[in-house]
Amino acid sequence: MTMSANSHVYLDANATTALDPRVLEAMLPYFTQQFGNPSSKHGGGEAAANAVRRARAQVQKLLGADKPTEIVFNSGGTEGANAAILAALEAAPRRREIIISAVEHPAVLALCAYLEKHKGIRIHVIPVDRHGWLDIDAYRRALSDRVAVVSIMWANNETGVIFPVPELAELAKEVGALFHSDAVQAAGKLPIDLKATEIDMLSLSAHKFHGPKGVGALYVRDSVRFKPQIRGGHQERGRRAGTENVPGIVGLGAAAELAAAHFDDEQTRVRTLRDRLERGILDQVGHAVALGAAAERLPNTSTIAFSFIEAEAAVMLLDRAGIAVSMGSACSAGSFEPSHVLVAMKVPEAALRGAVRFSLSRHNSDADIDRALAAVPGIVAKLRAISPFGAEEGAPVALG
Amino acid sequence: MTMSANSHVYLDANATTALDPRVLEAMLPYFTQQFGNPSSKHGGGEAAANAVRRARAQVQKLLGADKPTEIVFNSGGTEGANAAILAALEAAPRRREIIISAVEHPAVLALCAYLEKHKGIRIHVIPVDRHGWLDIDAYRRALSDRVAVVSIMWANNETGVIFPVPELAELAKEVGALFHSDAVQAAGKLPIDLKATEIDMLSLSAHKFHGPKGVGALYVRDSVRFKPQIRGGHQERGRRAGTENVPGIVGLGAAAELAAAHFDDEQTRVRTLRDRLERGILDQVGHAVALGAAAERLPNTSTIAFSFIEAEAAVMLLDRAGIAVSMGSACSAGSFEPSHVLVAMKVPEAALRGAVRFSLSRHNSDADIDRALAAVPGIVAKLRAISPFGAEEGAPVALG
Ligand SMILES: Cc1ncc(COP(=O)(O)O)c(C=O)c1O
Ligand SMILES: Cc1ncc(COP(=O)(O)O)c(C=O)c1O
Repeated sequence: MTMSANSHVYLDANATTALDPRVLEAMLPYFTQQFGNPSSKHGGGEAAANAVRRARAQVQKLLGADKPTEIVFNSGGTEGANAAILAALEAAPRRREIIISAVEHPAVLALCAYLEKHKGIRIHVIPVDRHGWLDIDAYRRALSDRVAVVSIMWANNETGVIFPVPELAELAKEVGALFHSDAVQAAGKLPIDLKATEIDMLSLSAHKFHGPKGVGALYVRDSVRFKPQIRGGHQERGRRAGTENVPGIVGLGAAAELAAAHFDDEQTRVRTLRDRLERGILDQVGHAVALGAAAERLPNTSTIAFSFIEAEAAVMLLDRAGIAVSMGSACSAGSFEPSHVLVAMKVPEAALRGAVRFSLSRHNSDADIDRALAAVPGIVAKLRAISPFGAEEGAPVALG
Repeated sequence: MTMSANSHVYLDANATTALDPRVLEAMLPYFTQQFGNPSSKHGGGEAAANAVRRARAQVQKLLGADKPTEIVFNSGGTEGANAAILAALEAAPRRREIIISAVEHPAVLALCAYLEKHKGIRIHVIPVDRHGWLDIDAYRRALSDRVAVVSIMWANNETGVIFPVPELAELAKEVGALFHSDAVQAAGKLPIDLKATEIDMLSLSAHKFHGPKGVGALYVRDSVRFKPQIRGGHQERGRRAGTENVPGIVGLGAAAELAAAHFDDEQTRVRTLRDRLERGILDQVGHAVALGAAAERLPNTSTIAFSFIEAEAAVMLLDRAGIAVSMGSACSAGSFEPSHVLVAMKVPEAALRGAVRFSLSRHNSDADIDRALAAVPGIVAKLRAISPFGAEEGAPVALG
């Protein structure tokens, strides 16, 4: 799969994915032809409303939701997570505590930091161990009838580690807390069957599974007393105002259907590619470890912490070699702090700034992995040769 | 201009517009080729970030903003209006009053109703007269140092009536209140030069001027202490988190540039079409009045209140005749209450449910107006013939 005219190998799918051409094809008629406003009372409005209805059923199916009305379209995962947590606080104003994990995405972390600082909400941050596993005992201890909402991600964006959210949701239910899961990295990559769980709310974002950017959905179980965070017209049954992004919603629906249809074969193939990449790198490069590899992980993600290098530099050199990858989370790019996820996993100091994330999608091929395997070991060696860490620590400078 | 295969005449541009094909062309590369996440550190991320930068400059120019950093991309007009008002309340927590007009869009009205009911915020609702003009004396009286924010629309979506927002903003400044204008119907239709005004915040939505749905912008003057309503990553310099909708933002930028380039000729042509339609209808149909026609109006909007008919039925029959129009606001569709705008303008009882909005765009042609003029009088006459009002009131049943 090529990223653009310069034919990069794109291994940054957890940051965002290319639109599937079939998704674009599904969207196209809604830009210039069936462009009506679903609220309009004429035929053009009706056509748009029908398209939104179809997409709602497609997302319902992807998530195994009980009813189509439990799907609320919005602008993406960040809006969804914010809306879920704020709605939960409004629904139970006397519950003034929230439980999250230490490795949540900034969409959850930044909101909770604000709520703690400015609204007097107590935030319980559940630690993970060095494999990325959640401390379930700490989670149980934090649960009480003071907790308004638990927000724990389904799969981590940096490591791919999967949390046992159905079980966590059952425990939350015992104390009457709502349970939200940020499933932005899980939706479209893992089978999800919400009706078989106690999960109350779940957020997803289309652009993480070959759908368009700027559109997502929040699942809201029918029993939840949901309060909207964006008020105005009656769209989305009063739960999210604003003219519907019809082409985007159609694209999300199409992406959901494609993901659901290809779960087994695509995910098996992607897992095989990922495993080959990871094993190939670890075979060739010493002082490197695949984070969260002992835990259950997304089939597409491999984050490798290379001791004695700066991931920033590795990303740059790989980019020049035609390979697009990420350091830590794309969303925290711009800051040079080590990723909070790696800190939470107690990655050793020497490797804390050297984690490179390889994230694949069904658009990747065997040839992509060949190219990555040909480039990575040399680049790591080169960086170690010039590394101040390497020099200081007397580390092996020409590994691999 | 045709709406779809069935070649409707589309006169519902205030509800939404068709994407300009040139806008779609500008967007297309960003779906499947330059699909990177602007936060990514590789070349694909950089290309996306550059595209967003270009679009920001295009929107800056459309609005005459002083700096590109004053443009905050978001999901549309509703989100923008909500964010502006809530940010203003957070910036001045001791100011507990808001001023709005009686004819604001639900994006403002519904939020303010909530703030009044649940947060103890006092809402001053400034009336309009039967021409749609704002009661400036009432506005002056409501202003005080207790007011956190004034939110008054630039142009009304139902009537097209334009408010003198630059002057209103100057008055707000005298008492230290922030001023937000919902310019969703004005942006792209009227020249705006924000740097010459005291307006602090302004919201717009791309789909109202041939850009894509689901994307908009909030102008935030550099001096405003703005607090984000969606928290997470560092996108939009911390003022609106969430992966940027790159193709949508590119489309908004392109639509802004096209609108700005064609202001004079297009708007003159559209005004001529609108005037011909309006005069043509009023010449042929009695007991009908163009709302707000004595005030300054958008060049594209004509809302005609026909006595003794139900607009709902007129919209339906016009749709069957191949003409797409609206009754009242598309956003309040689904409810059968008369529009709050018409109530505020004291439209007489007999016409309160008979207002039909014709809203044009640069995609309309003379032939469209011919078709509308051929259809409207007959449909109104037909409805009056079967109208219970007509029968009761002994109204003329075969006018026109
Ligand atoms: C005056 C006005 N304000 C706000 C909005 C809301 O914009 P959007 O639906 O794009 O969020 C609209 C249109 O629906 C409008 O006409
Ligand atoms: C785990 C996780 N949650 C939330 C988000 C936010 O999604 P979006 O940027 O589409 O709003 C992302 C991606 O950026 C993510 O990886």
